[in-house]
Amino acid sequence: MSVAAVKSYFLSLQETICSAIEEREPQSSFNRKHIEHERGLSKPQVLSEGQHIEKAAVHFTHVHGKSLPPAATKRKPELSGCAFEAVSISLIIHPRNPYAPTTHANLRHFEAKSENGTHIWWFGGGFDLTPYYGFLEDAIHWHQQAKKAVDDFGVDLYPKMKAACDQYFFLPHRNETRGVGGLFFEDHNTGDFKSDFALVQSVGDHFLPAYLPIYDRRNPMPYGQRERSHQLWRRGRYVEFNLLYDRGTKYGLQSGRRIESVMASMPPVVNWTYDHQVEADSEEAKLLNDFLHPRDWLDL
Amino acid sequence: MSVAAVKSYFLSLQETICSAIEEREPQSSFNRKHIEHERGLSKPQVLSEGQHIEKAAVHFTHVHGKSLPPAATKRKPELSGCAFEAVSISLIIHPRNPYAPTTHANLRHFEAKSENGTHIWWFGGGFDLTPYYGFLEDAIHWHQQAKKAVDDFGVDLYPKMKAACDQYFFLPHRNETRGVGGLFFEDHNTGDFKSDFALVQSVGDHFLPAYLPIYDRRNPMPYGQRERSHQLWRRGRYVEFNLLYDRGTKYGLQSGRRIESVMASMPPVVNWTYDHQVEADSEEAKLLNDFLHPRDWLDL
Repeated sequence: MSVAAVKSYFLSLQETICSAIEEREPQSSFNRKHIEHERGLSKPQVLSEGQHIEKAAVHFTHVHGKSLPPAATKRKPELSGCAFEAVSISLIIHPRNPYAPTTHANLRHFEAKSENGTHIWWFGGGFDLTPYYGFLEDAIHWHQQAKKAVDDFGVDLYPKMKAACDQYFFLPHRNETRGVGGLFFEDHNTGDFKSDFALVQSVGDHFLPAYLPIYDRRNPMPYGQRERSHQLWRRGRYVEFNLLYDRGTKYGLQSGRRIESVMASMPPVVNWTYDHQVEADSEEAKLLNDFLHPRDWLDL
Repeated sequence: MSVAAVKSYFLSLQETICSAIEEREPQSSFNRKHIEHERGLSKPQVLSEGQHIEKAAVHFTHVHGKSLPPAATKRKPELSGCAFEAVSISLIIHPRNPYAPTTHANLRHFEAKSENGTHIWWFGGGFDLTPYYGFLEDAIHWHQQAKKAVDDFGVDLYPKMKAACDQYFFLPHRNETRGVGGLFFEDHNTGDFKSDFALVQSVGDHFLPAYLPIYDRRNPMPYGQRERSHQLWRRGRYVEFNLLYDRGTKYGLQSGRRIESVMASMPPVVNWTYDHQVEADSEEAKLLNDFLHPRDWLDL
């Protein structure tokens, strides 16, 4: 198995990302927990109530077991009962400034090996962006970085992973996307572990170059009660997505993961305003009309 | 069919409840919508940002159709394709004062009749209470009224409906109930329509006598930032229940009901604070320890 290399990369990425956030946050630092248990290691790291970052959660988990449950091996039933390992990093950043978008990223790796040598592994993950105000240059930069992250591994990958992201982060009851999307992939296994791991590393390494220029551009922008109210209202949609649809949240709740780690993705302050309507032709309406439906951001 | 009588009762109960709330609210009144559509009538009524009532939603709906979908008739497949009618009233009250509990109530009636005379109908509903601070006298009064509402129809009903309420309003991932419970019943049909309708009227008529004395006692109590923070944190659990587990919400989303009516149950302002711990031996700890696990409130 090659989990050790992936684990080491995820742990180093976690620190790189946490440091980059802390550099931007004079007031708060991450609460770093290190929880070793018989099934592995969890490192939930959460920064709360910063001056600029209202909440950020960057979690690492490593789980291993001696016997894979049948439910987890539908594709290869012969692996039921095999030894397995899974590592993941997942993060969410909720800035305080409504002009600075929320972002989420996740990378994960799974391996199992049977006694007779059958070996299965895959990678999954991606990153996506949820603005409260739409800026075309931000969406374009975000998707340029997303494309750059995966293009070396196949020119079909960006369109495929971009479409999968739009499809996954969609709220059918609101008929809108969660944000402007990005990359999303599951069950990725080309047969070449080295190359697939390199792809995952490239996605991980492109996260900060994708997000920080946007954050650094928007965070200094002045805002008032109007923008804050709009952000708190939009955060309700984030909660609706995570609790109604997100498979990661559902899996976390069902599998008995530490509940405060699962719920760390929740926005810190949220409003539900009954029958809220945005003003026609406003910046708030522009977000809904122009940014929350799938678009080809690199060919507008 | 006898839907007309039930409809008339639900509409009158809706106004009684809305008036009782408005009497207590100097600043706001209900936004009353009357939406007639080809499948029936909706009257969503919402009061927002009152001085005392931060949000209240009291909805009436009447839906009828010429052909019942097969999915809705698992118990009596011969009714598939039959004419049907359903009426319901559902309400939620979120007071501003953290000492005043949130409450929810729902009553509903369904009827279908086939051409050869097969007739099916049932009632469902109940009411439940979600305090942010635990007061024994409130929980006892609430359950006394609940028992009083149903005792005339069978002494087994209160224990049965009380247990069903505890079971339904439970958050497994938090290992706690949503509140102190109350009454919950589904598929209620003893064969005697008149008596079953009388039971439902009794539950409806006992709602205000159950809630108002508690509200009127708690609403004048002074509170500060500590109590408000606790309330906003606890409201996160309310959202978690409604979006993760509540069948009414799920059904509303899946059946294409007006989405703002479904989401009107959401608390107006909510906080998720990472890894929040209540102080040992505090009033907040007392709520968690003594009030959010099923108890026999009438035999303590």
